[in-house]
Amino acid sequence: MSDRFSSIDHQMMAKAISLAKLGQYTTSPNPNVGCVIVKDQQIIGQGYHRKAGEPHAEVHALREAGAQAEGATAYVTLEPCSHYGRTPPCAKGLIEAKVSKVICAMQDPNPQVSGRGIAMLKDAGIEVEVGLLEPQANQLNRGFIKRMKSGMPFVSLKMAASLDGKTALANGKSQWITGANARTDVQVYRAKSSAILSTAQTVIDDNASLNVRYDELPDGVRSTLDESSLRQPLRVILDANNRLSNDLRLFQSAGDRLILGSTLAMQHNLLNAAHQFDLPKLLRFLATEHSINDVWVEAGATLAGQCIQHQVVDELILYLAPKFMGQDSRSLLGLTGISDMADTIDLNIEDIRLIGQDIRLSCSLR
Amino acid sequence: MSDRFSSIDHQMMAKAISLAKLGQYTTSPNPNVGCVIVKDQQIIGQGYHRKAGEPHAEVHALREAGAQAEGATAYVTLEPCSHYGRTPPCAKGLIEAKVSKVICAMQDPNPQVSGRGIAMLKDAGIEVEVGLLEPQANQLNRGFIKRMKSGMPFVSLKMAASLDGKTALANGKSQWITGANARTDVQVYRAKSSAILSTAQTVIDDNASLNVRYDELPDGVRSTLDESSLRQPLRVILDANNRLSNDLRLFQSAGDRLILGSTLAMQHNLLNAAHQFDLPKLLRFLATEHSINDVWVEAGATLAGQCIQHQVVDELILYLAPKFMGQDSRSLLGLTGISDMADTIDLNIEDIRLIGQDIRLSCSLR
Repeated sequence: MSDRFSSIDHQMMAKAISLAKLGQYTTSPNPNVGCVIVKDQQIIGQGYHRKAGEPHAEVHALREAGAQAEGATAYVTLEPCSHYGRTPPCAKGLIEAKVSKVICAMQDPNPQVSGRGIAMLKDAGIEVEVGLLEPQANQLNRGFIKRMKSGMPFVSLKMAASLDGKTALANGKSQWITGANARTDVQVYRAKSSAILSTAQTVIDDNASLNVRYDELPDGVRSTLDESSLRQPLRVILDANNRLSNDLRLFQSAGDRLILGSTLAMQHNLLNAAHQFDLPKLLRFLATEHSINDVWVEAGATLAGQCIQHQVVDELILYLAPKFMGQDSRSLLGLTGISDMADTIDLNIEDIRLIGQDIRLSCSLR
Repeated sequence: MSDRFSSIDHQMMAKAISLAKLGQYTTSPNPNVGCVIVKDQQIIGQGYHRKAGEPHAEVHALREAGAQAEGATAYVTLEPCSHYGRTPPCAKGLIEAKVSKVICAMQDPNPQVSGRGIAMLKDAGIEVEVGLLEPQANQLNRGFIKRMKSGMPFVSLKMAASLDGKTALANGKSQWITGANARTDVQVYRAKSSAILSTAQTVIDDNASLNVRYDELPDGVRSTLDESSLRQPLRVILDANNRLSNDLRLFQSAGDRLILGSTLAMQHNLLNAAHQFDLPKLLRFLATEHSINDVWVEAGATLAGQCIQHQVVDELILYLAPKFMGQDSRSLLGLTGISDMADTIDLNIEDIRLIGQDIRLSCSLR
């Protein structure tokens, strides 16, 4: 890569990626994309995609560059689109602006259109390079990419426990295991997610609203996100036994709900013979029918255990509070039947840090 | 302090502390002490205490300095001794060598002799300063200091569990929860301890030898410690019901043992009415009768729970392996009866790091 790309190239694509991130709370179900237009090593235009239905990153950047775009280089974090959707194709815009070169971090992950934007640019005589800072560009849209490639969303499973692996006392008391900083951190994860998946049990036990509270987001997030721009994730609640009632906070709080009661669940064939949700089917349904890129699972030990057993977890976010709750408290994970050490659920720790007084682990399943 | 001590002073005391650390596997029950003798900003003599019965740090350093010691400054990590023991008093040695100044990191923690060495030096016309890098010097001998001041040893409780707080499967299988690096790390802790405290149950369940295996110590330790210099900690085994038999590995492995069977336990009045060990009494007995500075507790959930409940733990070393073992596996901690979140056992995390694939937490109890 060092042959193909200069240090200016790296710097400009890094800028495009940081622009793309400004849309991370708002673009779902669309991907995050950033664009920088550069001439004589100077940025003459920049932009990012903010929200589905609004202009793509390239449009913002080209508008800012104006006539100067002729002969310039465009850095885009994702292959420019080639199709007429709610906005005209960005590849066409770049051609009309007469840029001489386009550098993309990655190809479009959608197998049906991947490469078409690049081909359109090349056909117009524009030099195209692909692959600069590709790992970072992948990370930026891991949910969108997974949905495009596999029809499944990226699944993050959130859990919180004491250091002895407990989530509640024997009498059910659990407020609060983790500290205020960890709870704020959870608000950020929720805000980035397309959907929050939980159960009727959790909603009833905690009378949880499971939405994003703008005033609980950290200052750093609020400074880049107006309250009016806040996009609430879709709250998907598993309720096969129709236990939810309208007086719960869930129904009195901002954000859309998808209550999967028995009728809807059966209509979409989401239950198995034991009248339980078939998790892979459910997740595929959310990706294909509701364009859900990233699912944040926030429920109890039972759903957590099922997610792990059905191997649908891409990322585990585990908060560990520096306390012991004792052996008669409730266990973190509804997972039984492990009778050999070779059968334990093994994880890779990807990240570990302190959030206030609590430990936050990010793990992938081995 | 910046008034009293120069940057050369800091540098020289840091050197003395690093010398003192060279004795950390061998000096027990004596403290770790380092000494540097400096003239015209050059080190002319240095030494550390290696082993009880062998010369003190000051003796080594003065020998190396020889006649040049006259008019020099001595940096010592602990107040020089004033009494005739197995070796003559170091304060006397410094006076005879005609050093002009002595800087100590800290006073002798033994209330019966504290300040006497300093007084002896001052009486001889030597300038004395105390308190340079005192926190580091305290850390170096935290067990010795605690024993001298309170008659109790410093207690480190070791535990290892999966991320869901389990130490063994329901069928008892537990090898191995943590990885090889964590097990090597435990060997280092054992080697630094004066005693290892465990139970007949653990010795029988695991047929554990609970000693230090030289070839399992990391290279960094072996390079500073000959196999012939290895000091085995005293293995203290709680066996109130006289369950141990001589065919166990414990009795066929290097190192001394103190088996606290019913007779010995009752003789020293270590049992309570329930025929269980009274942990504070036991620890005081080890400190006063066996000169134990640092106790490494390595046993099962029951003793761990008792140590925490009786608040005898100074430091908790918790290894967390990146795996889940399921809710029917055995819990980390034999601790029951917590019925309110305000009654959980709360910890301060002092240190967190990865040891191989495992997390190691060092915590103090709040």
